[in-house]
Amino acid sequence: MSLDPKTLKFDDKGLIPAIAQDQGTGEVLMMAWMNAEAVAHTLETGRVTYWSRSRSAFWVKGETSGHVQELVEMRIDCDRDCLLVIVRQSGPACHTNRRSCFYTAIRDGDEVEVMSPMV
Amino acid sequence: MSLDPKTLKFDDKGLIPAIAQDQGTGEVLMMAWMNAEAVAHTLETGRVTYWSRSRSAFWVKGETSGHVQELVEMRIDCDRDCLLVIVRQSGPACHTNRRSCFYTAIRDGDEVEVMSPMV
Repeated sequence: MSLDPKTLKFDDKGLIPAIAQDQGTGEVLMMAWMNAEAVAHTLETGRVTYWSRSRSAFWVKGETSGHVQELVEMRIDCDRDCLLVIVRQSGPACHTNRRSCFYTAIRDGDEVEVMSPMV
Repeated sequence: MSLDPKTLKFDDKGLIPAIAQDQGTGEVLMMAWMNAEAVAHTLETGRVTYWSRSRSAFWVKGETSGHVQELVEMRIDCDRDCLLVIVRQSGPACHTNRRSCFYTAIRDGDEVEVMSPMV
């Protein structure tokens, strides 16, 4: 069955959350949003492409920073309202220069930084 | 710095996406939504608790199925608008009885089921 991005369930803004996971380490790198065109662009080009809600623009991940995400495999969840993109990540995924955006842990009720920026 | 769930960025419905990842395998199990009370309940009880958008009710994961998610660690992303919960998952995370909700892959443009229901 061939994927038609229109069969995914987008929210009232036409967006679907996409979780990026590192192929090698299994690390969850980030979560961002795609619209139907971003899904199609990601599948066609193999370059993970999001929709930037703050800039209202396509966001080919790493286009300016060089920290690209090469698509290994896209997966759809059971409700068809969330995507998982398994990627090869060049350098940091986070704009703070950390490998992952999820660098703040809650431990004993306190926020603890568990990851340093890459050098 | 102690976490106040109100410092997280919830969407216009008062919700924040939460990605559940298996502690042992690193597998991404599911994505669901929490409100501030669900975040607090998850941290207080160690039982991952979501907000069911379809039922408009708290959803202590596994409360009826037994397929609970024991919280190992909660993480916050750089924008404070997404959570990662690292969990010990009992049995399948997906209502289809599969370990993960992300059992459909896109391969060569086609949808392929890459995971079977647990027996």
